[in-house]
Amino acid sequence: MRLTCTRLGTVALASFTLAAATIAAAAQQLPPLAIAGQSARHQAAIDRARALVRDSMTANGIPGVSVAVAVDGRVVWSEGFGFADLENRVPLTAETRMRIGSVSKSVTSAAVALLVQDGKLDLDAPVQTYVPSFPRNGREITTRQLAGHLAGIRHYRGNEMYSARAYPSVTASLDIFKDDTLLHAPGSKYFYSSYGWNLLSAVVEGAAGEPFLTVMHRRVFQPLGLRSIVAEHVDSLIPFRAHYYEQGQSGGLRNAPFVDNSYKWAGGGFISNTEDLVRFGSALLEPGFLDAKTLTTLFTPMRTSAGEETHYAIGWRVGQHEGRRELAHSGGSVGANAFLVLYPEARVVVAVLSNTTARFIGGGTGGRQIASLFMPR
Amino acid sequence: MRLTCTRLGTVALASFTLAAATIAAAAQQLPPLAIAGQSARHQAAIDRARALVRDSMTANGIPGVSVAVAVDGRVVWSEGFGFADLENRVPLTAETRMRIGSVSKSVTSAAVALLVQDGKLDLDAPVQTYVPSFPRNGREITTRQLAGHLAGIRHYRGNEMYSARAYPSVTASLDIFKDDTLLHAPGSKYFYSSYGWNLLSAVVEGAAGEPFLTVMHRRVFQPLGLRSIVAEHVDSLIPFRAHYYEQGQSGGLRNAPFVDNSYKWAGGGFISNTEDLVRFGSALLEPGFLDAKTLTTLFTPMRTSAGEETHYAIGWRVGQHEGRRELAHSGGSVGANAFLVLYPEARVVVAVLSNTTARFIGGGTGGRQIASLFMPR
Amino acid sequence: MRLTCTRLGTVALASFTLAAATIAAAAQQLPPLAIAGQSARHQAAIDRARALVRDSMTANGIPGVSVAVAVDGRVVWSEGFGFADLENRVPLTAETRMRIGSVSKSVTSAAVALLVQDGKLDLDAPVQTYVPSFPRNGREITTRQLAGHLAGIRHYRGNEMYSARAYPSVTASLDIFKDDTLLHAPGSKYFYSSYGWNLLSAVVEGAAGEPFLTVMHRRVFQPLGLRSIVAEHVDSLIPFRAHYYEQGQSGGLRNAPFVDNSYKWAGGGFISNTEDLVRFGSALLEPGFLDAKTLTTLFTPMRTSAGEETHYAIGWRVGQHEGRRELAHSGGSVGANAFLVLYPEARVVVAVLSNTTARFIGGGTGGRQIASLFMPR
Amino acid sequence: MRLTCTRLGTVALASFTLAAATIAAAAQQLPPLAIAGQSARHQAAIDRARALVRDSMTANGIPGVSVAVAVDGRVVWSEGFGFADLENRVPLTAETRMRIGSVSKSVTSAAVALLVQDGKLDLDAPVQTYVPSFPRNGREITTRQLAGHLAGIRHYRGNEMYSARAYPSVTASLDIFKDDTLLHAPGSKYFYSSYGWNLLSAVVEGAAGEPFLTVMHRRVFQPLGLRSIVAEHVDSLIPFRAHYYEQGQSGGLRNAPFVDNSYKWAGGGFISNTEDLVRFGSALLEPGFLDAKTLTTLFTPMRTSAGEETHYAIGWRVGQHEGRRELAHSGGSVGANAFLVLYPEARVVVAVLSNTTARFIGGGTGGRQIASLFMPR
Repeated sequence: MRLTCTRLGTVALASFTLAAATIAAAAQQLPPLAIAGQSARHQAAIDRARALVRDSMTANGIPGVSVAVAVDGRVVWSEGFGFADLENRVPLTAETRMRIGSVSKSVTSAAVALLVQDGKLDLDAPVQTYVPSFPRNGREITTRQLAGHLAGIRHYRGNEMYSARAYPSVTASLDIFKDDTLLHAPGSKYFYSSYGWNLLSAVVEGAAGEPFLTVMHRRVFQPLGLRSIVAEHVDSLIPFRAHYYEQGQSGGLRNAPFVDNSYKWAGGGFISNTEDLVRFGSALLEPGFLDAKTLTTLFTPMRTSAGEETHYAIGWRVGQHEGRRELAHSGGSVGANAFLVLYPEARVVVAVLSNTTARFIGGGTGGRQIASLFMPR
Repeated sequence: MRLTCTRLGTVALASFTLAAATIAAAAQQLPPLAIAGQSARHQAAIDRARALVRDSMTANGIPGVSVAVAVDGRVVWSEGFGFADLENRVPLTAETRMRIGSVSKSVTSAAVALLVQDGKLDLDAPVQTYVPSFPRNGREITTRQLAGHLAGIRHYRGNEMYSARAYPSVTASLDIFKDDTLLHAPGSKYFYSSYGWNLLSAVVEGAAGEPFLTVMHRRVFQPLGLRSIVAEHVDSLIPFRAHYYEQGQSGGLRNAPFVDNSYKWAGGGFISNTEDLVRFGSALLEPGFLDAKTLTTLFTPMRTSAGEETHYAIGWRVGQHEGRRELAHSGGSVGANAFLVLYPEARVVVAVLSNTTARFIGGGTGGRQIASLFMPR
Repeated sequence: MRLTCTRLGTVALASFTLAAATIAAAAQQLPPLAIAGQSARHQAAIDRARALVRDSMTANGIPGVSVAVAVDGRVVWSEGFGFADLENRVPLTAETRMRIGSVSKSVTSAAVALLVQDGKLDLDAPVQTYVPSFPRNGREITTRQLAGHLAGIRHYRGNEMYSARAYPSVTASLDIFKDDTLLHAPGSKYFYSSYGWNLLSAVVEGAAGEPFLTVMHRRVFQPLGLRSIVAEHVDSLIPFRAHYYEQGQSGGLRNAPFVDNSYKWAGGGFISNTEDLVRFGSALLEPGFLDAKTLTTLFTPMRTSAGEETHYAIGWRVGQHEGRRELAHSGGSVGANAFLVLYPEARVVVAVLSNTTARFIGGGTGGRQIASLFMPR
Repeated sequence: MRLTCTRLGTVALASFTLAAATIAAAAQQLPPLAIAGQSARHQAAIDRARALVRDSMTANGIPGVSVAVAVDGRVVWSEGFGFADLENRVPLTAETRMRIGSVSKSVTSAAVALLVQDGKLDLDAPVQTYVPSFPRNGREITTRQLAGHLAGIRHYRGNEMYSARAYPSVTASLDIFKDDTLLHAPGSKYFYSSYGWNLLSAVVEGAAGEPFLTVMHRRVFQPLGLRSIVAEHVDSLIPFRAHYYEQGQSGGLRNAPFVDNSYKWAGGGFISNTEDLVRFGSALLEPGFLDAKTLTTLFTPMRTSAGEETHYAIGWRVGQHEGRRELAHSGGSVGANAFLVLYPEARVVVAVLSNTTARFIGGGTGGRQIASLFMPR
């Protein structure tokens, strides 16, 4: 006799799954836990944004969300909603760190820009100039192509995004894809690849002469006063780190599968709170941290060798929203979504993070709607 | 020029008031934080009770509720809902202690019963036998009359319920009313009086020969294994104590006014979690902690001298619910409500506590509805 | 150029490791977070036990500990120390659930005993009577041998204890070892094997005719009112679950590696709070839940076929401590330690859990020292 | 018979008092809960400062401390230590708001300075120019004298600091002292008076033509992006507000008495986190928020009419520390201490808050020692 061990006793009685619609309702109406900007001017925007976030949590079953908005370089609102940890009912606050996924690319791009500005990195040199160990296989890839997803490096396959392996170094993580055939001739097509950014971070190491995370820390995080953003080393004790959730087949929330993102720091391995993200974005609104020429390099969208627009610059997607130039990146992680958007002319920067997969966050709808509320009239 | 200092900046921006309907919605859909009874038999009842509590929180703007249910002397469900502290988002759990208000009278009645059982207290002797300092003023009051609200002692006047004064002893608290004229001839009328229970606790001290709180501890709490119930000394650090809220004029929640209940331990000064309350109630379902004769004394409703039924025994209200004998007490405190109900024949005991004034809790509706769900069929 | 990505920036600055001696010092002097027994008799014992726990936390770098003590079938003390989650500073309370490791065997043994008592399970029949799919390979194993670690089934090999795989059923988990050669002739030697208990739980399923976890729930947890003990399904949201830690090479604390214990519910996969464990143990102090004959079967230590004493009964280690008969089990998990001990004659039961590996807990020293404090004089 | 109700049962068993030395030891070794500045340059300073704070907590029995340090206008470190709420074990984080006591004077002084800069307030005009209702009693007081504690207005008497009364407006709070005789001829002596600042805030209302708290919000908090500082309205729900403690006679910690600081917003009624305080201080390091001339007015120490130095400017104490000019203020509240210090030449600003009375904090020793660690070499 073979019995399938049903989990009736456990699931039904002592633990719980939650229908998406109900969990969110919980978070929806929580009293504000904000260190809110004391600005009469922004108060109406904050009130509307708060309702927007709560409604989206209800509608989409999101356990926790964090939002920060900076206007003219100053954080005017940051607030956590819902829970960072459902099992122990830890409230999600503005300090809570969550996975930023591919927004890591935008953050990493600042280090690339600094090295270019310093004359240490030639975007158009072959990557082997900086990563001699990377196989040529008869084709030349440049750093600019990597940054613009034009190199032909492949993206995740199968369950690779659920990697639980600890990679000791950036170069070790190249083993995942370095011997795989390029998908197309470098420069000929736009194909989004996080692995391309693994190689990009190896370029950063080579150009800077020090480990990638050290470069990020010394050149980007420290000078900009970003105190929460770190690589999510799974064994490190990182204060205010959220738990991540996913929706089960029946619509209930479950703990997200365990993953170790050490295979992709540059392309998707950082965690941060939203305040740091808008401070980071605000530092790019005008020359200062980077000079004017480098900012132009950073934010100019690339074209394929055939001249087709990609709308993607160096770690930033370039577009338009309500007639305004928009620089943005979304980030999808296991159990999390992120969105960072800059409106340079309006001087408005918005970051939104959630601790479950939620299109409202990751797709940018939420962040854009919130940004609209804070636009100068 | 005289300006009224509006609180615009503070209230509107950095703190918050909450519409009753919205705060409750928050608590409504929170995932269960229960150490729930692993009973298939009770699971449906628990699910319905949970929905009932959440709905009432939504409808009535209640920040936090705790419920415990014991069947056959065993806790089959206890769960906290919402928040013990809104400012710091402390979840309300089954361990959270809240004011039990006049349910203190039911708890105190157990000490009275034990002293009667021991032959140390004659319920029909004048109170001066045990409290010689209490003025006679020409009229004799008995302990039974105090216990049954028949003595003619007055209740709170004006803002007395908001007392912030620390009384060093039970006898000191008698000063509040001891020189006031009785409201009627002792025994002639039922008039609910918490101050009558102040005097009752002085009787307990006199009969037992030790301080009231020591009697409660040594004779009631310790033998019954009640580990959370204590007098709410405002300066003591008491683990898991809730904050109390009240609804402001605009329907929003505010911190309840500060009170010091040391003027009325016996009649309304204890705090407890709900598990202790149902354990206490369960100990009275059958002879054991008290003998059969004493239980009869405790639970027999009194009559006025004219023979009118009062439906109130010694610290217990005696009634019927859905054809079953019911022993119950409600408790209203500043910023809190409590209800404890026993159905001796069904062997079901329910306790419900809230950290705001909520008729659903204090009026007993909630507790009775929950009890019905757990009744044996 | 190959750079090893040092984690200087991350580890040294934004996250942290803690020297064992210092983290514990933190927990050492925390104010009691106890719902403590209100017993003058036990107060001195509680005070000393509290000091003992704190000192051990200091000396051994333990982030969190929970203790419960039952005397005469009643919980007289339960208290959490330190933190259930260091990253979000969640206090560890008496409600916190932690891995109980091999104490799961003692819990599982109650189901075995009930099936024997019911006449549904013959301890001396071949296991294939209940698990026909288990390969015979020419040798007969009995349930009693499995229960007493006498069957010759192997234990973990290599990194098997760090399994991250989800097993859908008890029978699926037999695949790990079922085709391996027995270590010795059944009955001839004592060799501790958690896998033997996997097979034992398959026997329970076969004898009971329902899944193992359902049997545990319906026959053991529910009737005994154990409301916190559950199988640790990694994806389920389980309220009050602790995080687990381990000491790194430099003596600092780190997050314990991710594991999925679904490969060994019966032998090491339950989580519980300490109150449930002492309630469970208290139910075995005298006939009632089990009859006298079955209790004798449960607690009688076995011998090898050569007559050598094993000091191990059915899921219980049988010994002496300070002249008293002791029934106990320890449990070591990834990032946790557990100990449950019963002194039937003194009617004292103690459970201790920690959320890191700590010999003071798992080796039983702590539990025994605490028990001694509560012994009747 | 009169029995003093000892609190044996309650205090000894279910609640607790803590010896100063032990409670602090708890906080002492807690793992950092910092969103720490990612600066290699400051890391050594942070490590030493952390040890300093922990040692002081141990030595002085402080339940919770918050520290923030800004260098060159940027927060390089902020961290909470210990607990914001001992009863519910809420960790104290960098977001926790605590009473800043008389540091409120420094904050209020910014509004005074802005009104002077705007030409709306003449520091040397009689206060009745702005507060016509304030009795003259034959003597002229100027705003400058109030700001410099030279006016002869009295300070608290008796238990006035423990006021639990809610004052509806700044002008209502003048009733406390407005009819009292001046202590000395205006200008003739330095006599520290918080009530003088009540009158000062009435001057602000008169000069600005709007309520004091509105002025503070509109002119100071909002433009500087200070999002946590608010008047501590006792009934408002204010996120992240700490609980306050005091040491009892036996050295143990107790809940601080309830107070309502609405009688003294300007002189001692604000609460804040430390980050806001150092941001505020940083805004005064150079012309910008205030112009150079106004800054000079603000920071120039006054003299008595006899020419005696007072070392007190407008809401700032002016001194020297290790050869550097120091602008500072301490704040003592019921259950709290605060210190804010600016070293304009070194561009270092430090704020320290505690949720109990602690000389190490309020006396400035701690803040100055921490500042020294961050000084440029």
